[in-house]
Amino acid sequence: MKLSRERDTSLLVHERRRAGSTLAHVAGLALLWVSAGVMISALVELFTDGPDVTPLMLSAGLMAALGLAMWAPTKPGRTDTATIFATVAWTWIIVSVIGALPYLFADTFVRWDDAFFESISGFSCTGSTVFGGDNPAIHEQGAGLLFYRSMTQWYGGMGMVVLAVAVLPFLGVGGLSLISAEAPGPSSDRLAPRVSQTARRLWLLYAGITTLIALALWLAPGPTLYESINYAFTTASTGGFSVHDASVGFYDSSVVEAILVICMIIGGANFTLHWRAVMGDGGVYRRSGEFRTYLIMLVSASTIVVAILWFAGDFAFAKSVRAGVFNVVSLGTSTGFGNATGGDTPGDFVGWVPAALIVLLVLMVFGGMTGSTSGGAKVFRLHVGVAHVRRALRLARNPRAVVPLKLGDTVVPDAVAARVIGFMFLYSGLALSGWFVLALLGTDATTALGGSFSALGNMGPALGEVGPVNSFVEGFSRPARGVLMVLMLVGRLELFPLLLMFVAPMRSLQR
Amino acid sequence: MKLSRERDTSLLVHERRRAGSTLAHVAGLALLWVSAGVMISALVELFTDGPDVTPLMLSAGLMAALGLAMWAPTKPGRTDTATIFATVAWTWIIVSVIGALPYLFADTFVRWDDAFFESISGFSCTGSTVFGGDNPAIHEQGAGLLFYRSMTQWYGGMGMVVLAVAVLPFLGVGGLSLISAEAPGPSSDRLAPRVSQTARRLWLLYAGITTLIALALWLAPGPTLYESINYAFTTASTGGFSVHDASVGFYDSSVVEAILVICMIIGGANFTLHWRAVMGDGGVYRRSGEFRTYLIMLVSASTIVVAILWFAGDFAFAKSVRAGVFNVVSLGTSTGFGNATGGDTPGDFVGWVPAALIVLLVLMVFGGMTGSTSGGAKVFRLHVGVAHVRRALRLARNPRAVVPLKLGDTVVPDAVAARVIGFMFLYSGLALSGWFVLALLGTDATTALGGSFSALGNMGPALGEVGPVNSFVEGFSRPARGVLMVLMLVGRLELFPLLLMFVAPMRSLQR
Repeated sequence: MKLSRERDTSLLVHERRRAGSTLAHVAGLALLWVSAGVMISALVELFTDGPDVTPLMLSAGLMAALGLAMWAPTKPGRTDTATIFATVAWTWIIVSVIGALPYLFADTFVRWDDAFFESISGFSCTGSTVFGGDNPAIHEQGAGLLFYRSMTQWYGGMGMVVLAVAVLPFLGVGGLSLISAEAPGPSSDRLAPRVSQTARRLWLLYAGITTLIALALWLAPGPTLYESINYAFTTASTGGFSVHDASVGFYDSSVVEAILVICMIIGGANFTLHWRAVMGDGGVYRRSGEFRTYLIMLVSASTIVVAILWFAGDFAFAKSVRAGVFNVVSLGTSTGFGNATGGDTPGDFVGWVPAALIVLLVLMVFGGMTGSTSGGAKVFRLHVGVAHVRRALRLARNPRAVVPLKLGDTVVPDAVAARVIGFMFLYSGLALSGWFVLALLGTDATTALGGSFSALGNMGPALGEVGPVNSFVEGFSRPARGVLMVLMLVGRLELFPLLLMFVAPMRSLQR
Repeated sequence: MKLSRERDTSLLVHERRRAGSTLAHVAGLALLWVSAGVMISALVELFTDGPDVTPLMLSAGLMAALGLAMWAPTKPGRTDTATIFATVAWTWIIVSVIGALPYLFADTFVRWDDAFFESISGFSCTGSTVFGGDNPAIHEQGAGLLFYRSMTQWYGGMGMVVLAVAVLPFLGVGGLSLISAEAPGPSSDRLAPRVSQTARRLWLLYAGITTLIALALWLAPGPTLYESINYAFTTASTGGFSVHDASVGFYDSSVVEAILVICMIIGGANFTLHWRAVMGDGGVYRRSGEFRTYLIMLVSASTIVVAILWFAGDFAFAKSVRAGVFNVVSLGTSTGFGNATGGDTPGDFVGWVPAALIVLLVLMVFGGMTGSTSGGAKVFRLHVGVAHVRRALRLARNPRAVVPLKLGDTVVPDAVAARVIGFMFLYSGLALSGWFVLALLGTDATTALGGSFSALGNMGPALGEVGPVNSFVEGFSRPARGVLMVLMLVGRLELFPLLLMFVAPMRSLQR
C-alpha cells in the first residue's frame, strides 16, 4: 500500500523506493532461510522433548511472515556498489537482531540484551557466549535451541563465503581477483560467470564440507550424531559455538581435537581453492601463496607456542603439544573452540606465560584466508604488508627506481594495495578504539585488549578474565558487551560495507 | 700503513677502502665532537669537586685520540645511498659504544653492560635510565658526569636533526620534501642548496633553541643555572634524562612544568619550520598540516586523559590537569620526563586507569614530527595512514575511479606512500617482536609492552613495573635490557638505515 503510493511521486522518491526494494528483497530472503532453520530446530526440540518448542515455532512463524512480507512484494532494484554494500550490511544487522527472537521468546537469558549478544555472536561467526555466569549454563538448554544457535553460525559462514567469493570480487574489492590470478585453474578469473551460479556452487560446497566434518566427528569415539552436526556447523563456519559448557574440552579426546584441527584449517582456507580441488585440481593449494603463508603461520606459531609452554615447565610435552596446536589453530582460523578441561588446565590459555599469549594475539589479528569463513584482517593482508616492507627496502636502496608491489610473481595493482593499506589502518584504529572504550567502561586492561581484538576478528574467547572457559558476562559489563556487539558486526562486514552504509545516503546528495 | 698497502691491490679492495674511509671520516669527526663534550664535563666535574675528574679526562683523551686516528688519515669517499646509510648507522653505534667509556672508567654502575645501556639511551635520545635500583642513584653522581650524560642526548638530538632535515631528504627518504611542499617558504624545496650549509644552520638553530630553554628555566623559580643547562640539553633533544632521581617531579613546580611543556612541544616539532619562523615567516606553523595534526593530537589527548583522570575520581581537577598535560606532552613528543613526586602520586602514570594508559600507548607509537629530535613513527606517518583510509573509502564507493593520495592539497607521490607503509608494517612488526622477546625473557606482559614501544619510539619510561619513577634495572632482566638497547638503536635510526647496513654489502655482489 505504502509502496504503491510512493511509486507515483518524483524521481528521487522513485529511486529511493527501488534501493529500498533491493534491501527488502535480500533481507526478506535471508529471513526466510533462517526461519527454515528455526523450524528444523523446533522439530529437534520437539523430538528430544525440549522445553522450548513453542518459542521456536513462534519465532519461525514470525520470521517467515516478516521475511515473506519483505521479499514477496519487492524485486531487486539498483545494483550499484553503494546499494549492494548497504544491502549486505543492513541484511546482516536485521537478521542478527531478528535472530534473537528464539532466545527472547524462550526467556533464555536473565537480561534481554544478552539474547542479541548471542545472536550477533552467532551470525557473525564470532563464538563469544553469554551462557554461564549468572545466565543459565549451556547444558541446561534444550537440544533444539542449541541446534538453532549452532545454525546461526552456519548461516553466517555461508553468507560470508558467498559475499567474499561471489559478490565482492565483482565490485572490485577484497583482493580476491588477485588470488584467483595466483592460482589459475579451469576458470581462471572467476568461479563462474554469474553471481547466482557461483553462489549456488558455494552453497553446495559448503554443505558438502559440513557433511564431511559431521561424518568424521561421528565416526570418532565420543560425539553423538547430534553433537557432530552441531560441531560441523560451527567448524565449517569457523564460528566456535559449542553444545557443551566446556567446549571441545568436554570430550578430553585427542582424536576429536585432531579432527577439529584439520577441519578448522579447511574452514579458514579460501573456498575458491576448495572448489578447484573438488573440480580435480588438487595442486591448487600448493600454488596459492596465501595458502602457503597460512599454513606456515599456523605451523610456526604452533611450534613457538608449544616450545614456550614446554620450556616454561608448567606442562609435560604431550600436553603442551595438544594445548598449543589446538589453541593456535582455533585462534589462527578465528574459530575460538577451547580444549580446556577446566580453569587452569593446559588448554586454558589465559594462564599461559605472556610470550605465548602475544603469539595468540598476533594470530587473532590476522585470522584465516580471504574467501573463507574466518574473521580478522586475513593472511592476504599480512602478505601485502610484507610485500610493502620489501618494496620500501628496495626503494630505500634505489630511491629513484620504479619498484612494483609483488606477491610472488603477481604484481599487485595500486588500487588493491591502497585498499589493503586503508583497511589495515582502519582496522588498527578500530581495534585500539575498541580497547580504549572497553577500558573506559571499566574492563580490566588485558581483558579489554583481548575483547576488542576477539570481537573485531570474530574469534570468540578474549584474554585476561574472559578466556576459553569463561562466559562473556563474567568480565564485561552490560555497556561493554554492547560495544562488543558493534565490534563483532563491524569486524564481520570487514569495515567498508558498514562504513559505506552511512556514507552511501550522502552520495546522492553530492551529485 | 695498512691502508697504504691495501691501496695497491684490486679494484674490489680499492672500492671497499673508499667506502670504509667515508665511515672512518664521519665517525672520527663525531668522536672528536663528543670528546670535546667529555672535556667540558671533566671541567665541570673539576670545578664542582666531583669524584670522577680522572675518568672523564681519560675518556676525553681516548676518544680524541681514536677520533683523530679515524678522521685525519681518511677523506669522504663514496656518497651513494647505501654508503651514507651504513655510515650513519655505524657512526651512531660506534659513538654509543665508545660513549660508555666515562661510565666504565668511573665505575658508575654495578654491571659493565649498564654503562652501554645508559650511553645508548643517551645518544638515541631515549631517556630510559639504569640509575637507581641496585645501581647508585643519580644524586650520588658528580655534576660533571651528569653533565656528560645530558650532553649525550644533546649530541644525539643534533645528529638526528641534521640527519632528518639535511641528509635524508637528499636521498629521497623521510618524506620531508613533501612537508616542505606543504609549507612553502623563501626556499621552497630545501633549507639550503648544500648539505653542509644546511647542517651548519641547523646547529646554530639547535644551539639557539637550547640556550633559550636554559634561560627560561633559569629565570623560573627553582632550577639553578647548571640544572637549567642540563634540562635544556635533554629537552631540545626530546631525550628526557634528568639530573634528579625524581626527574622534573623534583621541583614540584607548575611553572617549571609549564615551561618544559612548551619547550618539549618545540623540540618535537619540525626544525625546518623553526628555521623558517626565525627567518621571519611566522605563519609557517599555521600552514603546516603535520604541525596542526601534532598540536591537535597533543591537545585532544591531553583533554581525554585529564577528563579520564578527573572522572576516575582519584585526583582533584588541578592535579589531573597537571599530571595529564605534562605526561601527554612528555610522551607525545617522545621526551619522557616525569613529574611524579613519588610512587602513586598523580604523575606516576602506571597507576592510572587503563583507558588513560591506552592513550599514552598510542602517543608512544606516533611521537612527534618528522625533522624533529623526537622518536616514534611520527605524526606525518599517521597523517599518511589517515589519507590512505580516506582514499580506500573513496575507492570502495567508486571501484574504478583513480583517486590520488592527498595530504591537504598536496598529492603524495607513490614512492613516498610506499615507504611510509613499509615503515609502518616494519615498525609494528618490530614493536610486536620486541614485546614478544621481552616477555620471553620473563618480563611481565605490560612492562614488556611498554618497554618495547618505549625503546623503539625513544620515549623513556615504560609501563607496568617500570613507570616514570622507576629504574630500568627494576623490571627488566639483563638480557631484556640488551634487547632494549637494540630496539633503542633501531628506533633512533628509523629502521631503514640499520637494515640497509646489513643489506648494503650484498649490493656490490649483485652487480
